[in-house]
Formats: sequence, C-alpha cells, structure tokens
Amino acid sequence: MVTLGIDIGSTTSKCVLLRNGVDIVAKSLVPGGIGTSSPDRAVAEALEKSGLGLGDISYTVVTGYGRTNFKSADMQVSELSCHAIGGRFVFPKLRTIIDIGGQDVKVVSLSDSGKMVNFLMNDKCAAGTGRFLDVMAGVLQIKLSDIENLAAIADKPSSISSTCTVFAESEVISQLANGATIPNVVAGICDSVASRTASMVKRIGVTEQVCMGGGVAQNGGVRKAIEKSLGVPIAYSPLSQLFGALGAAIYAYNKINQVK
Amino acid sequence: MVTLGIDIGSTTSKCVLLRNGVDIVAKSLVPGGIGTSSPDRAVAEALEKSGLGLGDISYTVVTGYGRTNFKSADMQVSELSCHAIGGRFVFPKLRTIIDIGGQDVKVVSLSDSGKMVNFLMNDKCAAGTGRFLDVMAGVLQIKLSDIENLAAIADKPSSISSTCTVFAESEVISQLANGATIPNVVAGICDSVASRTASMVKRIGVTEQVCMGGGVAQNGGVRKAIEKSLGVPIAYSPLSQLFGALGAAIYAYNKINQVK
Ligand code: SF4
Repeated sequence: MVTLGIDIGSTTSKCVLLRNGVDIVAKSLVPGGIGTSSPDRAVAEALEKSGLGLGDISYTVVTGYGRTNFKSADMQVSELSCHAIGGRFVFPKLRTIIDIGGQDVKVVSLSDSGKMVNFLMNDKCAAGTGRFLDVMAGVLQIKLSDIENLAAIADKPSSISSTCTVFAESEVISQLANGATIPNVVAGICDSVASRTASMVKRIGVTEQVCMGGGVAQNGGVRKAIEKSLGVPIAYSPLSQLFGALGAAIYAYNKINQVK
Repeated sequence: MVTLGIDIGSTTSKCVLLRNGVDIVAKSLVPGGIGTSSPDRAVAEALEKSGLGLGDISYTVVTGYGRTNFKSADMQVSELSCHAIGGRFVFPKLRTIIDIGGQDVKVVSLSDSGKMVNFLMNDKCAAGTGRFLDVMAGVLQIKLSDIENLAAIADKPSSISSTCTVFAESEVISQLANGATIPNVVAGICDSVASRTASMVKRIGVTEQVCMGGGVAQNGGVRKAIEKSLGVPIAYSPLSQLFGALGAAIYAYNKINQVK
C-alpha cells in the first residue's frame, strides 16, 4: 500500500511516497511553496521517479503552511504533528525538534513516547528564519551553501548586536565598510541565528536527542552555531527537510490502518 | 544669554540656539546622525545662521541616541526629557507625544503640569519606524515626501497583514504584481505604521492634547492615518522634528537659571 505525504511550505514544496508505512519509494523537493504550481509539480516529480500513478495511492495527507489551499488531498494535518512523526521516524529517540524554515522557526518538544507535548513558533518576525539568512547572503553576495565553509575559517566572528533583520543588515554593511572579513561576518550571522533559536529552545527545555529539520537544517554553519549555543549535539539527516512530508505519508498510512 | 541644544539621532543631527530660554535664534537639521560629522556640522550651521560664535554660548546640552559620543557639551540629557520639554514649549497643553524617528518609536505621556509620567519605546524592531517607510518607499520607487499625496488619492487602501518590515516588503511586492495601485499600497503602508503606533499609544493611554514629533511627523500621510486610528486630532508643528534640540536648549537655560 502506497501513501503520499505533501508538505507545502512558504518557499518549497516537498513530497514523500511511502510503501507500507516504512519504505520511502520516492521523494521530491521543488522550490516554490504556497500560491505556486510547485505542490503539483512536486507530486508529479515523486510519481515520475517512482513509476507510480495517482491511482496507486491509497491515501494522501497534506501538511505545511499552504495545506489549506491544496484541495485534492484526503486530509490536512498540522505541520507540527507531521514534523514530530517524520522526525521520530528518522530519529527514534528524538525529543526536541528545531525546525527553521524559510519564514518561520518552530521548536517542538516530544514526550518519551513521541507525543507532542509543547511547541513554540515564530512566524511573525523574519529574524532567525531562513529569510534572515537570505537577506544577509544577498548583502554579502554569497551563496547560502557557502555559509558553512566561510564560517569555518572565521578567526574573529563579528558580533551583530541588532536582532532585527533590517537593522542587522545595516550593521553588517557598516562592519564590512570598517574592514570586517566576510568569514567573520558570516560567523557572526550564524551566531545571531543560533542565539535567537537557542533562546526559544531553552524556553521549551533542551531535552536530548535534539535534531534539526526545515530548510536551514542543511546549513552546517548555523547548525554548528546552535550546537555551540545549546551545548548539545544536534542530529541531522539529509531527510531533515522532508520531515513534514514524511510525517504526512506516515500519518496517511496510520490513518488507513487506524494505528492509534 | 544664549544656550545651545543638540539632538543627535540615528539619521539626523539637529541644533537649536535659544536666547533667554524663549527665542529661537537659529536652528539646523543636517542629515547623518551618530558616528558622522553631522553633529559638528549642525552646530556650525546654526552658529553661522545666527552670526554668533561658540564663545557666545552660555551652556550646551546634548540629547538623543548619539549624545554619549559628543564630548564637548556641558551636559547630556535623555531624549525623552528633552522631547517632553520641547514639545510642551510648542504645545503648552501637551499630554502625549508620539515620536517616530528613523529607527525608533517613542510614546511619552506627560502629567497636567508637563512632567513625564510614563513612556514606551521600540528601538529593536524596524516595523513602524522611519526605516519601515524608507524600505517601502524603496520598493515603490517613490519619495517619502510623495506619501501624503499618494495616500490621499487611494480609493481602496491595501491591507498589509505582516507587521515585519521584511515580510511586509514581500507582501507589497506581490500586491503590486497582483495589480494593486501605488496610491492604494501607500495608503496601506500608512495604515500599517498607524496601527502599530496606535497600539503603543493605547497601551500608555490616549490623553489629549496629542502631538507628533520626530522625522516621521512631517509625513502627513502617516499622521492622518494615526489620527484615524486613535480617533483624536494630532497637533503638528514644523518645529516637531526639533523638539529634542529645543528641549535641550531650554534645559540648558533652566540649568543655568536653576529653574526647578
Ligand atoms: S524585528 Fe525586524 S525582522 Fe523582526 S519583525 Fe521587526 S522588522 Fe521584522
């Protein structure tokens, strides 16, 4: 039996096709989220990769910020639940998920048995989100994928005092004008995201195992800065960005099989 | 006796030369605030206009965000006190000052006798400050001075749901792409600043007479939107941007004359 999980975020659309609730048959990640054709394209891409057709899918669950706009799914499920399920599938001992997306930050706390017990979310302020990194990468004219290597060679990380994306942007511009090196500024940017994230995580409690999901999880520079801020290792998997879609596909499987 | 008040803000430097605590002899307003040569240039400009020299000045008070960097003044006084004194000089019945500067918003509540009794300040978030307007004017490719006239011809003001400057910028870009007219978007921007300001003023209490100071006070579009949000008239004077410097010059006069 094949189930489909779709996660429509603010900046990307993701799909996972799952066989019997355990085997990932195909996955896709398409740039473009809510309000674009990307969700449909992500579904088409996953189907094409798997060689399956829509008729082969027993149940579809859609999640993420854009889930209510996607009418053809069998069910909509909140992204927090799906992230918890997907995260726990990849890391069975997971207790804390830090999910930094393109426009929001979520921290989800799970019980020993994997039930969501608490969460914090910031989707009002761009500071500390993927958008903050986009703005900074734009100012520095670097690629997001360069951040990890640049931060690694910093010898004296800049200190960025403004939390606000707009004010921090000006601060970075003036630091560069005053001779700060790009690696040092990049390290300062990672520390800025980390300190904001860490204060959210500390409010909810740092229970190990901690993992990162969301697009920013791929960013090793930010991940390492958060590890340093929290003082605990942070698990990461190439599947991290697919936690929502994976959780949705598992939810779909459990729904049909009425797993409680 | 001539006293000098200097107000060093984040984006402009202002001076007032005052004779006998009541007559404005000269004033100046120079773009560029803390960390630039503008404070010195503002002093030089005021002196030049008045035909006076530094030796003619009995006492100098510096105020504003950048006051601690300006060592040659006789005294530093907090901007909230100076705004209160300057505002009250121009509007003797003033009870509430809304000061929107380049990078901050302050709301000051005065007692019947003019003493500062409460204040609220936001200097952490660019939303609702002059910087928010700068960013939006940049996106729309309009001048700040066009905002009032554009907002006045809006027939269906846009509604901007994001408070965050960064997210609101994206929202404005997509509204324009979806055919919203510039006047309607400009009116939406004024409403956004107004609703943010109004919620601060309401927290502190809307006691009339209410006036606006700070650079954004000149912006009639924003001023009118705040009047609408608060439901009270907002006094405004061309001296509004000089409240801090004027208050500092009066403070200097009172200091010498030991007015309590
Ligand atoms: S602090 Fe800056 S980034 Fe955060 S909401 Fe305000 S404007 Fe946006």
